[in-house]
Parts: sequence; structure tokens; C-alpha cells
Amino acid sequence: MDKTFLVTGAAGFIGSSLARNLINNGNKVITIDNLSTGYETAIPEGVGFYKGNCQDYNIVKQLEKYSFDAIFHIAGQSSGEISFDDPVYDLQTNAQSTLLLLKLALKTNCKKFIYASTMSVYGDQLDTKVNESAILKPKSFYGVGKIASEHYLRIYQQYGIDCTALRLFNVYGPGQNLQNLRQGMVSIFLTMALKDKRILVKGDKNRFRDFIYIDDVLEAFKKALNNKFPEFKVYNVCSGISTTIENLISSILSNIDHKVLIEYSGSTLGDQFGIYGNNSLIQEELGWEPKYNLEVGLKNMVNWAINNI
Amino acid sequence: MDKTFLVTGAAGFIGSSLARNLINNGNKVITIDNLSTGYETAIPEGVGFYKGNCQDYNIVKQLEKYSFDAIFHIAGQSSGEISFDDPVYDLQTNAQSTLLLLKLALKTNCKKFIYASTMSVYGDQLDTKVNESAILKPKSFYGVGKIASEHYLRIYQQYGIDCTALRLFNVYGPGQNLQNLRQGMVSIFLTMALKDKRILVKGDKNRFRDFIYIDDVLEAFKKALNNKFPEFKVYNVCSGISTTIENLISSILSNIDHKVLIEYSGSTLGDQFGIYGNNSLIQEELGWEPKYNLEVGLKNMVNWAINNI
Repeated sequence: MDKTFLVTGAAGFIGSSLARNLINNGNKVITIDNLSTGYETAIPEGVGFYKGNCQDYNIVKQLEKYSFDAIFHIAGQSSGEISFDDPVYDLQTNAQSTLLLLKLALKTNCKKFIYASTMSVYGDQLDTKVNESAILKPKSFYGVGKIASEHYLRIYQQYGIDCTALRLFNVYGPGQNLQNLRQGMVSIFLTMALKDKRILVKGDKNRFRDFIYIDDVLEAFKKALNNKFPEFKVYNVCSGISTTIENLISSILSNIDHKVLIEYSGSTLGDQFGIYGNNSLIQEELGWEPKYNLEVGLKNMVNWAINNI
Repeated sequence: MDKTFLVTGAAGFIGSSLARNLINNGNKVITIDNLSTGYETAIPEGVGFYKGNCQDYNIVKQLEKYSFDAIFHIAGQSSGEISFDDPVYDLQTNAQSTLLLLKLALKTNCKKFIYASTMSVYGDQLDTKVNESAILKPKSFYGVGKIASEHYLRIYQQYGIDCTALRLFNVYGPGQNLQNLRQGMVSIFLTMALKDKRILVKGDKNRFRDFIYIDDVLEAFKKALNNKFPEFKVYNVCSGISTTIENLISSILSNIDHKVLIEYSGSTLGDQFGIYGNNSLIQEELGWEPKYNLEVGLKNMVNWAINNI
């Protein structure tokens, strides 16, 4: 492609995967990352790295010298549970950051902005196979910041920046952080299974989620990059399949040789009981569809994790 | 009543009116105001005044010594147009402030939180007599911050703080700022008519709004204070009547003796074309209804303004 992209959060799971993919396709990639949960070693070789916060004007203004073909804003605190620790920080990392980056896009004449939003914007929904037009009732501060960012995108669209928000459901796969036991449902359970031979589940086993494999998510970002709609768009990025926590765990364990003890207790703040998504809008409008089912995706991830934990 | 209330923004139009009303009924009132658009002289006598921003932790923590019966959070930048000047400041004044005050409520065991939200959360709506369940599409950064705050209220409700958000439509009446020509549609036109004998309208004369008199708004705050629903509630506070800009102006002028030149030009950023509200929910659930029609309200306001400009 030979273009220049800003991918914020390239020390994290999704950001580093996307940055690597773009670099491997001959593009130039710049990133901002504060390394609060990501690792400098995870930033792909060749990526220009600015260490700091995307909500920090002094960091973002350093990027005014670039001419980005698109901005992928992926950085941000990404756990509903953790957002209860410091809601003000969460607002800054997840909403103020977006404002500054949209302003950067406007100032540098960047015409494309793709945002990593989340299924956490929905909260609990009566119709759980949720589509994009559902009324939003986030249960965590994290979800609130993401909603604010989506609105900012819609406002900036009127300045001629084509903006797309991808509401990512539970993303999993190789590259997910295996050290952080408060972020990423699949990685948490898998890490516990491999390291401790014991999985502690905070919450009910009948809760359900929609798991989507990292490579499918990267494909969604690329489809969004080629999105030609001259209006703000929001898409669910999900499998459309509901999987209970109990079934997720047994699928993980089917890939592991040793015995694993499973315990259920308590719950976490702001946790959604159950949600899964309707992905027909992104299928129809961008021609995206998930290619990895949970069985294949988990097999890949467990194989990777055994060698990387 | 003999209670203690925090009313943020008591140097402003709505905050000072509410604070005066509460003081006159025998209550103790504390306020935080940054005097950015309000005036210290507007703060009613007897109100305990903390000068600063509600998004400033060092200010808010000074209030931890009080035991408030309720917090009325009214302070905040309140113009859609002005929110385009500095969207980051707008987010802080309108959303971060709410987080800090909700935290204060939790810490000091205050069980009631009433929030001044806005019709700006709606943006343009196909069904213009909008009700509270409409999908929100704010057109200004101001509206986005207010939406974030509403979500925060819903999240804090689960901690046992009864939270109500009042979506105020175009509030007008005696006490509105006659010096600030960027904030408050009725006060802007009235000031121009009285001072310059010339009204410059930024935008189309066929735009329409829902005007609600200050005394009706104060009554809505009092009804919200007595709201016994143990769940987060959002209500439109509006007349339910659509008035075009052209009709508003001729109603204002019918109260003025001298001739006034009217000119139309341009528009302002983030302006909604037309909106008016359905107020049946607050009528049914809180027994509130507007008592002042536009004719009576404007007459009162013009009489006041002539003596106070």
C-alpha cells in the first residue's frame, strides 16, 4: 500500500496486531502508547513510537508534522472493571484522547478516522442479539467514554473526515496479554489454566458473550479503511454467536492436556450479564464476515500461549 | 424545609434562581461557581460560595465536610456554539465535573442527585416532538458531555444515590444574563432589541424551539427533589409547544415600544434546526406541568429586563 498511518496503542493486543499487519503490507506506521498495560517489546519493528498519553496535548501535537492517510485510534484503558478504579482517568483516556486526535486529523488534513469502540456501550439489553440502533445503557465508566467518542466522530464527520466506529465484542487470539488478570476474558481464563491449573471465575457461569478472533477484527479495520460512505458509520464487530462462560471454559480446556480446577465466585463491577451481537450491518455494507469459529480460534490461541507464557 | 443543599453554578441564571428559592424556603445552600459567565453579585445572599471549577478535585474535596440532603448540579458551560471553541474544556466542565460530584455524594452519604441536562442531547430528530427514549444524536460537544453525565448518573444509581436528569429545553426569564450575546436565545434577542434596537439572527427564521419559563423549571427541580422512584430517571422539561424564531421575535417585540430592525444571517456551529419536546413523562410521574405560557413569561421577562439592562 505504501501509506502512512497512525495506530494508537500499538503496544497493546489489537494495536500491535494491526500495526504489524500494516507494516507487513509496506506501510509506514506511527504509534502513541503510554505502556500502561502494553509492552514496548510488543510494538512491531519499524513502527515510530511516541511514548505518552493520547489525551496529552503535548504528545499529540508532536504528530502534526505527519500526513496520515488514516488514524486508527485503538489506545485507551479497555476494561469495564478497571474503569471503576478511576473514572476521571477513564474519561480522559477514552474520550478526551479522541477529541485531540480528531483535532489532529482536521489540522493535518487526514480524511479517515477509524475508532475502536466496544460492545460495552450497550450494557444489558433485553434483545440481547443487539444491533447498532439499540438504546445505549452502559454499565461501566469505560462504556460511557466510548460513547462520547462515538458522538465526537459523528460531529467531526461534518468537517469532511470520514469516521467509522467499530464496536468490538470480546476479542481474543494470539498476542493477547497473558500477564494482566483484569483484562480480556479469554486471556484471563487461559493464563489461569496454564499457570495455576485453576480458573477462578468472577461471576455466573451462565453469563454469555460473543467472542471474535483477532484476525477477523483486523480484517474489519481494513474494511473500514476502504469504507466509502460519506457519513459516520458504526458497526458491530462480532461473531453473532452467543457462548456461555461455562462453554468458553470447556472449549479452552479441550485444548489443554492437564487437569484444571474451576471455581466460581462473586462478580466484577459493571459486568454485563449477557450480550451478543448482530453483525448483519457490517456484512451488508462492508462485506465483512467472521472467518474463524471459536474452536479454531481457541486452538490457535492455546498453541501460541503455551509457547509464550 | 431546613435542609442543606449543594447547588453548583449559583452565579448563573438557573443556579442563582434555584439557590434563592431554596434559601427563601429556609434551607442552607452551598455553591461552587467559577464565575466564567456568572456574576458573584448574582449569588443570593446567604449562600456559601466556593470559587472554582466543579471538575477540580481540590475544590470539590473541600465540600466533604458537609452533609448534603441533595446535590443539584447545574454549573457547566451551557452553549452548544461555545463548546466548539474548546471541546476538551467542555468535556471537563460538563462530564468530569459530574463524576467528581457523584463521588462526593457517595463519600458523604448524600442520597439525592439532580442534574441539569439539556435538549441538546437529542440533536436533530425526525420526530421533532421528542420524547426521552429517542436515540441521541447531539450536534455539539456540549450535548456529548451532558450525555456522558446522564450515563454516570445511571451508574451511580446502583450505589443507592437516587439520580434524576432534567433535560431542559430553552429556558428563559428574569435573571437571564443580558451581557452575554452567545448564550441564551431569548436573552440574546431581548438584549439586542433593548440595547441596539436591532436584532441579528444567526440562522433561519423558521427554526423552532421549545421555550420554558424559569419558574416552571424551578418547580421541576423541586418535583425532582421529591421524586421517590428508586431508579435513574430522565425527564424532558419543556412546554411541549413549538415556536419558530420568527414568532419568538415578534412576541418579544410586542412588549417593546420602540422600533427594532431584524436581520438574518449565517448560522452557528452545532445548531439544531428544530426541536420541541414531549413532556408527558414528567407530567405523569412527577405531576409537573408548565404554568407560564410564552406570552406571560415574555411579558415578565421584558419588564424585568427594561429595569436591569
